[in-house]
Amino acid sequence: MLFRQVTVIGVGLIGGALAIACKRRKLADIVVGYGKRRGELQRALTLGAIDRYFLTLPKAVEGADIVVLAAPVSVFERICKTIAPHLKDGAIVTDVGSVKGKMVSKLSALMPKHASFVGGHPIAGREKSGVGAATVDLFDGSLCVLTPLPNTPVKAVKKVGSLWEGLGAHTVNLDPMVHDKILAASSHLPHLAAYALVETLLHPRIALNHPLQFSGGGLRDFTRIASSPPEMWRDIFLLNKDELVNTITIYQDTLEKIKKKILTDNGVGLLEILAHAQAARQKL
Amino acid sequence: MLFRQVTVIGVGLIGGALAIACKRRKLADIVVGYGKRRGELQRALTLGAIDRYFLTLPKAVEGADIVVLAAPVSVFERICKTIAPHLKDGAIVTDVGSVKGKMVSKLSALMPKHASFVGGHPIAGREKSGVGAATVDLFDGSLCVLTPLPNTPVKAVKKVGSLWEGLGAHTVNLDPMVHDKILAASSHLPHLAAYALVETLLHPRIALNHPLQFSGGGLRDFTRIASSPPEMWRDIFLLNKDELVNTITIYQDTLEKIKKKILTDNGVGLLEILAHAQAARQKL
Repeated sequence: MLFRQVTVIGVGLIGGALAIACKRRKLADIVVGYGKRRGELQRALTLGAIDRYFLTLPKAVEGADIVVLAAPVSVFERICKTIAPHLKDGAIVTDVGSVKGKMVSKLSALMPKHASFVGGHPIAGREKSGVGAATVDLFDGSLCVLTPLPNTPVKAVKKVGSLWEGLGAHTVNLDPMVHDKILAASSHLPHLAAYALVETLLHPRIALNHPLQFSGGGLRDFTRIASSPPEMWRDIFLLNKDELVNTITIYQDTLEKIKKKILTDNGVGLLEILAHAQAARQKL
Repeated sequence: MLFRQVTVIGVGLIGGALAIACKRRKLADIVVGYGKRRGELQRALTLGAIDRYFLTLPKAVEGADIVVLAAPVSVFERICKTIAPHLKDGAIVTDVGSVKGKMVSKLSALMPKHASFVGGHPIAGREKSGVGAATVDLFDGSLCVLTPLPNTPVKAVKKVGSLWEGLGAHTVNLDPMVHDKILAASSHLPHLAAYALVETLLHPRIALNHPLQFSGGGLRDFTRIASSPPEMWRDIFLLNKDELVNTITIYQDTLEKIKKKILTDNGVGLLEILAHAQAARQKL
């Protein structure tokens, strides 16, 4: 066993999948869940994702070797303040949040001397949410980014790495700021672009012709991520404001560049961009 | 049998799927293929998509009850000029092009008195191309838009409708201009946005951090359509210039609106847009 007790704060899609996989892959003797709604926790218990649950944070983290924050990123700070005095000696706190940046040093600073914080972000997910959508293989073959700071104990980083490798992921270490820069482009912008595209189809001048009724598989795939939970993405967009805004601006410039090629009937220039993008996409 | 002879001009993904399905569903006695490359036609023959092929247009359309243009939209006009003198009495010419607009009246005007043109656009496809990617069920349950003009013979429209219904699609009639307005939003903009997104990730300031190596299923799905053939989409974008440019502008405005909400930390306004888009997407 890697851990005697894992406590998962927020047993939704990611927290639930982590909990189930910890049980099935025998990474922990006991998996404890914390949440705000008893119904969801009861469901997680029934599904065999957790062994027991608590509706209060201090009880949930009591005795935990590792505490995984899988709640909305916007409440991490409040959670860490509450749990800090109740962490056992040598406890590790980690998270699965999509935004790192300044958050990592903020949360690290909230830890007591005998515990450590290691930022983590599994790049896996589905547009569905809740423990009902959690699957034991969600992290299989996926990438998990760890964002240790220069002063994060190496032992704690290795331990969190072992957890993710045990769950089937491979890990890579990144500076928290670099993480946010990369994810702004590879994840946050695509989600924002998908929401914006659907919103465009709902624009009065466009919606009057009911374009959504004339959609093929392309539109469905393209906009699938726009059915992700809006509250979660509002938080991510606001927390990664600076990097995301820079990235949106480059996207806007690119759209403008393509629009100009079309407006000037510049087929050669247009094909150059489309072929460049297609070649890169085919390598994915 | 619905037709004695169907001639397919361009036996690629769509033309090939139509040919195979015509054979298997017994909609035609003979399916004839035309193309520029003997290798592709030979492949279509081997796959059982066509009964014979020709490398010259007049021979290919000789005796055809219906001629389906499944070549790039940019060459439709030239093809119609070439085949017009060789069409048999009562022949119908139709197409599968993604852009209609003025093209429909242009091609209709090229028909001899004893033949008619009916515009068609099956909303089906894959990002792959070539007859090798063609499947017999490509049109099953899909929508095919027909774009007859006020003076298009009703009998010809019905005949083309029967072809598509025989292929498993349901049909709807639209004015060619309305078709282009709708498809600009439901198909052309999503493709353009996907190409632009990949191109954004290749921007020097973004590419240096290799965001494509940190992509989850969301990015892959979102950008799948950016691996579509760039030549085809260059043609579509240029041919539907006016409607597409209007739609891009609304998309740009929407992105700007969302960017401003993020810049001003307007979580309420941001959530409103995301939730609005998510609700509409979930109905798809």
